[in-house]
Amino acid sequence: MKILSFPKRTEWPYLLARLTLDLADIEQKVAPIMQRVRQEGDQALRDFALEFDRQELGEIAFPEAAFDEAEGTLDGNLKKAIQQAYQNIKKFHEAQRQPVEKIETMPGVTCWRKSVGIEKVGIYIPGGTAPLFSTVLMLGIPAQLAGCREMVLCTPSDHPAILYAARLVGVTKAFRVGGAQAIAALAYGTESIPKVYKIFGPGNQYVTAAKMLASKEGIAIDMPAGPSEVAIYADDTAVPSFVAADLLSQAEHGADSQVLLVSTSKKLLSSVNITLSSQLEALPRRDMARKAIENSKAILVETPEEAIDLLNEYAAEHLILSVKDAEQVSEKITNAGSIFLGNYTPESCGDYASGTNHTLPTNGFARAYSGVSLDSFVKKITVQHITESGIKNLGPTVEAMAEAESLQAHKKAVSIRLNSLISDRNA
Amino acid sequence: MKILSFPKRTEWPYLLARLTLDLADIEQKVAPIMQRVRQEGDQALRDFALEFDRQELGEIAFPEAAFDEAEGTLDGNLKKAIQQAYQNIKKFHEAQRQPVEKIETMPGVTCWRKSVGIEKVGIYIPGGTAPLFSTVLMLGIPAQLAGCREMVLCTPSDHPAILYAARLVGVTKAFRVGGAQAIAALAYGTESIPKVYKIFGPGNQYVTAAKMLASKEGIAIDMPAGPSEVAIYADDTAVPSFVAADLLSQAEHGADSQVLLVSTSKKLLSSVNITLSSQLEALPRRDMARKAIENSKAILVETPEEAIDLLNEYAAEHLILSVKDAEQVSEKITNAGSIFLGNYTPESCGDYASGTNHTLPTNGFARAYSGVSLDSFVKKITVQHITESGIKNLGPTVEAMAEAESLQAHKKAVSIRLNSLISDRNA
Repeated sequence: MKILSFPKRTEWPYLLARLTLDLADIEQKVAPIMQRVRQEGDQALRDFALEFDRQELGEIAFPEAAFDEAEGTLDGNLKKAIQQAYQNIKKFHEAQRQPVEKIETMPGVTCWRKSVGIEKVGIYIPGGTAPLFSTVLMLGIPAQLAGCREMVLCTPSDHPAILYAARLVGVTKAFRVGGAQAIAALAYGTESIPKVYKIFGPGNQYVTAAKMLASKEGIAIDMPAGPSEVAIYADDTAVPSFVAADLLSQAEHGADSQVLLVSTSKKLLSSVNITLSSQLEALPRRDMARKAIENSKAILVETPEEAIDLLNEYAAEHLILSVKDAEQVSEKITNAGSIFLGNYTPESCGDYASGTNHTLPTNGFARAYSGVSLDSFVKKITVQHITESGIKNLGPTVEAMAEAESLQAHKKAVSIRLNSLISDRNA
Repeated sequence: MKILSFPKRTEWPYLLARLTLDLADIEQKVAPIMQRVRQEGDQALRDFALEFDRQELGEIAFPEAAFDEAEGTLDGNLKKAIQQAYQNIKKFHEAQRQPVEKIETMPGVTCWRKSVGIEKVGIYIPGGTAPLFSTVLMLGIPAQLAGCREMVLCTPSDHPAILYAARLVGVTKAFRVGGAQAIAALAYGTESIPKVYKIFGPGNQYVTAAKMLASKEGIAIDMPAGPSEVAIYADDTAVPSFVAADLLSQAEHGADSQVLLVSTSKKLLSSVNITLSSQLEALPRRDMARKAIENSKAILVETPEEAIDLLNEYAAEHLILSVKDAEQVSEKITNAGSIFLGNYTPESCGDYASGTNHTLPTNGFARAYSGVSLDSFVKKITVQHITESGIKNLGPTVEAMAEAESLQAHKKAVSIRLNSLISDRNA
């Protein structure tokens, strides 16, 4: 990869810029697809399957037998791996539950929040070469923990690991539908597929555009999407061959994957580059990975402080800190999706099975967005109860503020209660 | 208001439907405004102020002296009320902090989440007849608690209560700019106004459209907006005059406010209607409130279960439960922004000063969205550390899953580490 030495801070925005994706063209193609699914339901899904995939859709829902069969055919070793990942991801997400805590903000005024699972959620898993059963776990486990009553899966893949994972997380309905039309079905509902309130999951640009269009109509989505990316900050305590392997594990996702390496050590950057070339040649997906690596940058900076500033400006989806005292360094990171500390914490552990979620903000969105968590599947409803003495304590404050905002009826709703308490006392 | 007796469940979707807002036309007007601010910065803000408001903008930033003056001129009673509200809101939002908890998901595999304040946030407060200083508190206090480094306020209002509240919450920069062009300035930055990562706050349809356009470009926003609304569930333990006052406090927001009353008691509905008419006539904003009430519905249902189902289907922004055992009833509510329990908990207390946030999901968005909270101003970054023995425990799981997803480089990032540990041992 290209090594850039000591670029000026003024050059950073240019160096760190992501490819800008203009979805406008794709939205124009996707909007009529959405519209047809809205109007024609299942029939539109059947028509699109023929038109786009040259496939008779047949039964839209996966039958129970398909799940049984998946469980029967799945390799035992893989099954055990999926179970282990399930346990770890569940343990980490379970700890995100917040107990209800009642707060008495003033005597007689008690406020709290209760978490309620979103009643109906949709999970989309794309088809293609890589059957993303890991994403079924990452989205299904927090949905299961949140108590989402209806968990609807749409996927064009019938890979047994996807169906096995779907049963494990308690998917309530699963359908063999893919592409923008699957997102439309989840957004509007069809005769077979229930309408949901929030849609999760990765996909190509058509799927992404469909999710953005759905979100404009008030269907919640997990987060805006972009190509996957990793930044690695490494010093002379890093192992060059590990760093190269981590860069490649990102690069194999696709030619548009973003890979960034930052260091204060020229020696480290050179060593990584050497081992990178030889590791690359051994990969089955080397053509894709090579393109991603060619577009990527290794940046040599003067000081650790500069490295931190640059990484915070970049706001990587995944950030690997292969440096001395990695945990202390991580405390200075303000913008990142997920952070991996030290030499034995490769990104791929978080991608699959360590317990953290792999659905993370790309494209610099980590400046304002968090990755998927239990929170993504619940709403927190505030509740309050005010006693008679509470309204006496709080009422005059509300009256003064409502009056000053010229909202007399707001004031009146308090005054009428205060007056009734006075007249009760006088009675 | 119109009383509808025992409507069939199949009629509910129609009865509970909100006005659909088509923002497409407004977006077409707003897009060129956004574009000009992006290209011409402050000059565009000056031009728009002249064009739309017939006003020379002068100094764009509020000078320090304006804050001093606001503090000097503000009525003492109002100042005390704002301070009390500040304390209550702070107390409730402070309790939303989550301590960092490290979870060892497997021996040697430790994962946790750290909360980091979003570095730069923007708060928009509209002008108009009601100076919404309460919204400055509702957005500024959690931003302050989250430790947002830059808190930028844009408002066309120079009401002293707004400036007083802004100083109290620690706004770092404040600008006299309103409308869609203010949102554009926050989204793109100008010579005077810093670009932010997330934009909060209410506004008219132009402001709403500008926020939606900004969010398409990856600037986060608080939530999609719609007209404010309240649903009240009341039985014979409710006080009709209180219920009427609560309905009116919502109705005075505007002719498009949504007001819904649900009961199993015909008597209660009639009593509310009588007192509603007389209270309405006494209001300064009665013309607006009358229109809202005319468009609103009182629904008589057969059973409490039916009432709960209907309320969950409606998913109100504000839900008042003026019923016996209100807290138990609230546990059955799955869709609502904020719930108010019993006869002495009017919505206006939550609007101003009880402690809960008043920025809440309207338009049925409560099915998937929560109101604003401390969470809205932080990102939760996951962090993980895996030891040498941890990767030995977890590695084979990741290898099996990566292999099955055909991602060989992901597998390799683990294998290369496991191999190095074996060769270390053999050395």
